[in-house]
Amino acid sequence: MKAARFHGQKDIRVEDIPEPTLRPGAVKVGIAWCGICGTDLHEFLEGPIFIPHAGHPHPLAGEDLPVTMGHEFSGTVEELGDGVVGLTVGDGVVVEPYFVCDECGPCKAGNYNLCTRMGFIGLAGGGGGLSEKIVVDARWVHRVGDIPLDEAALIEPLSVAYHAVSRAELTAGTVAVVGGAGPIGLLTAAVLKGLGVTTIVTELSAARKDKALSSGVADYLVDPSEEDVKARVLELTEGAGADAAFECAGVNAVLDTMLDVVRPAGVVVNVSIWGRPATVDMQKIVLKEIDLRGTIAYRGDHAAAIHLVQEGKVDLKPFITGRIALEDLVDKGFDTLINHNDTAVKIIVHP
Amino acid sequence: MKAARFHGQKDIRVEDIPEPTLRPGAVKVGIAWCGICGTDLHEFLEGPIFIPHAGHPHPLAGEDLPVTMGHEFSGTVEELGDGVVGLTVGDGVVVEPYFVCDECGPCKAGNYNLCTRMGFIGLAGGGGGLSEKIVVDARWVHRVGDIPLDEAALIEPLSVAYHAVSRAELTAGTVAVVGGAGPIGLLTAAVLKGLGVTTIVTELSAARKDKALSSGVADYLVDPSEEDVKARVLELTEGAGADAAFECAGVNAVLDTMLDVVRPAGVVVNVSIWGRPATVDMQKIVLKEIDLRGTIAYRGDHAAAIHLVQEGKVDLKPFITGRIALEDLVDKGFDTLINHNDTAVKIIVHP
Ligand SMILES: NC(=O)c1ccc[n+]([C@@H]2O[C@H](COP(=O)([O-])OP(=O)(O)OC[C@H]3O[C@@H](n4cnc5c(N)ncnc54)[C@H](O)[C@@H]3O)[C@@H](O)[C@H]2O)c1
Ligand SMILES: NC(=O)c1ccc[n+]([C@@H]2O[C@H](COP(=O)([O-])OP(=O)(O)OC[C@H]3O[C@@H](n4cnc5c(N)ncnc54)[C@H](O)[C@@H]3O)[C@@H](O)[C@H]2O)c1
Repeated sequence: MKAARFHGQKDIRVEDIPEPTLRPGAVKVGIAWCGICGTDLHEFLEGPIFIPHAGHPHPLAGEDLPVTMGHEFSGTVEELGDGVVGLTVGDGVVVEPYFVCDECGPCKAGNYNLCTRMGFIGLAGGGGGLSEKIVVDARWVHRVGDIPLDEAALIEPLSVAYHAVSRAELTAGTVAVVGGAGPIGLLTAAVLKGLGVTTIVTELSAARKDKALSSGVADYLVDPSEEDVKARVLELTEGAGADAAFECAGVNAVLDTMLDVVRPAGVVVNVSIWGRPATVDMQKIVLKEIDLRGTIAYRGDHAAAIHLVQEGKVDLKPFITGRIALEDLVDKGFDTLINHNDTAVKIIVHP
Repeated sequence: MKAARFHGQKDIRVEDIPEPTLRPGAVKVGIAWCGICGTDLHEFLEGPIFIPHAGHPHPLAGEDLPVTMGHEFSGTVEELGDGVVGLTVGDGVVVEPYFVCDECGPCKAGNYNLCTRMGFIGLAGGGGGLSEKIVVDARWVHRVGDIPLDEAALIEPLSVAYHAVSRAELTAGTVAVVGGAGPIGLLTAAVLKGLGVTTIVTELSAARKDKALSSGVADYLVDPSEEDVKARVLELTEGAGADAAFECAGVNAVLDTMLDVVRPAGVVVNVSIWGRPATVDMQKIVLKEIDLRGTIAYRGDHAAAIHLVQEGKVDLKPFITGRIALEDLVDKGFDTLINHNDTAVKIIVHP
């Protein structure tokens, strides 16, 4: 079968490899679509980061270079391993792409996304969504029902967003600010809207401002280069401030703003990945008793994310901005995303 | 009566002023003891900070300079205003020294410590504990039963500590790290111990290390100049990390350590007041899904703090390290604390 494999920095090859073989407790999935993630891009440009270095296999995946890439994928169940129940050949599915140890403190507490040896399928090993087939343990497979498989490829980042939102413990009727309208910010706003939360999105780029408004995920859009974000949020909330704010840019000025716009006893969720330390005005955290919370990936969030789409509360179609073939992964996929094409949200790949 | 009043920076005068007059809903308290707080020291050295500037009265207290100081006090009820129930002349009491508006969002949500116009008795106006008598609204008065009134003067900072601990939502049998063993760190450790939490205290100063151990509030003491705090905490928790950590130093290295020592999904409570921005490694917050929480003062914590002392679960005696007369406030009180006398924890003043 065809697979896009990472051999080293800027060296991803689409090559022919053997099909993976089924094992007990696992299912074989024929892959329909796989999204390209910012992490994939980082690996291509600066990797290996999460991908194991040659000679240093991941402790759970047990593989090193080359690894097949892709962790945001959808597909159809083709074969069931021994002992698999609850899935049927032909089911449309998505996969939580995890390796976890089930032994460490976080795993035992149910926080498997914080597993001390955690790895991702499509990075640590175990095959990937940028290939024709994959064999994965049935526990990680989620049925998507009648969600079209192109949209289903976005369930993975939607689950990131769902988990981030769950960290803020919001209820319908509250108000949240989303800082940055890249793929993650847009999907975070989509989940918030889907749960009945009013969204105020901040963004600088014209194309992304348009997308946040045209997709309907931003109730209000504030451009910090044009308006004072704090003043606008206070105006929109009758002086109260937002109940929660989500840093989805990885930009210090955005983090500062998130701390400014939440009300006393509000929650700031930091979704972004930081390459360097941030400067934080601790007095805001102290005097407003803010909770600044980290969020990483997802645990038990896929079912709820799928449900939001099935109920029509989240529409994923506006966020698919490109469809390409596996052969075009680097030329039409990575290159488009690297050249700062703000009009691109999610490019999905068909193997 | 005698009162210590702030007239300006380094200008605190013990002078004769009229006794405050009783009003409906309020009680007159004869003050027994009043602790000196770090905030009082800051006002003396660098103020007015929380104390209103001349000509700019606090919106709720309605006073400006000079103001009577002192907010950590105990005393005896001497007179009841019209309509006061639940208190009796002769009761030993402490006071939550608040001015709050009861109208803003936080007040309406019950978070009166986050009142947008909040002021403190003894700083914003309303008299203070560094005088012979005070008249305060009965809602803020808490009976201390048989707790001696010298110890009761420490109920205020103990309530700060109780509130900080409540922000971490710990249960008995968990493990917490306290960074810094000044008065606030020591009392935070005392509350933790009182609630059945194992405490690991970090501190540099020899006198304070001794106090943390001799008072019994530190189960383990780690000096970061001698040991790797993270390694030691991991060893003591069998590799798991602490369930919570409390930054009680206002030192960036301590904050870093607190983020290092908590387990995945742990809570870091920042208790300290910061004069400048902190540098924060956001990746720790993200990848361990840490909650970094602010805490300020107290709300509804006095009853529980008093209860801990009455039950014998917290012993306040070791933390009273000096007793002085009102006339000696500056010479023997502030000066001792300013000259970095690490052996001083709480100096209490008798008017
Ligand atoms: N926590 C997790 O589990 C998780 C998972 C996936 C991605 N991430 C992280 O989430 C972050 C966002 O991902 P993405 O793919 O959407 O990134 P992105 O870079 O595409 O989007 C960031 C957006 O922020 C905007 N921005 C920059 N400065 C701004 C400012 N001052 N005000 C308002 N907006 C501003 C940019 O214009 C851009 O649109 C990244 O750091 C990514 O690594 C985290
Ligand atoms: N949030 C609130 O409501 C509230 C209320 C009162 C006080 N505070 C604040 O709490 C903080 C602590 O108050 P305090 O009176 O105990 O202060 P303090 O200065 O007396 O105590 C700080 C302690 O930290 C120790 N320390 C310094 N560097 C260290 C290091 N690297 N490792 C370990 N220990 C170190 C010092 O030796 C000192 O003993 C202050 O910032 C104060 O303003 C907050």
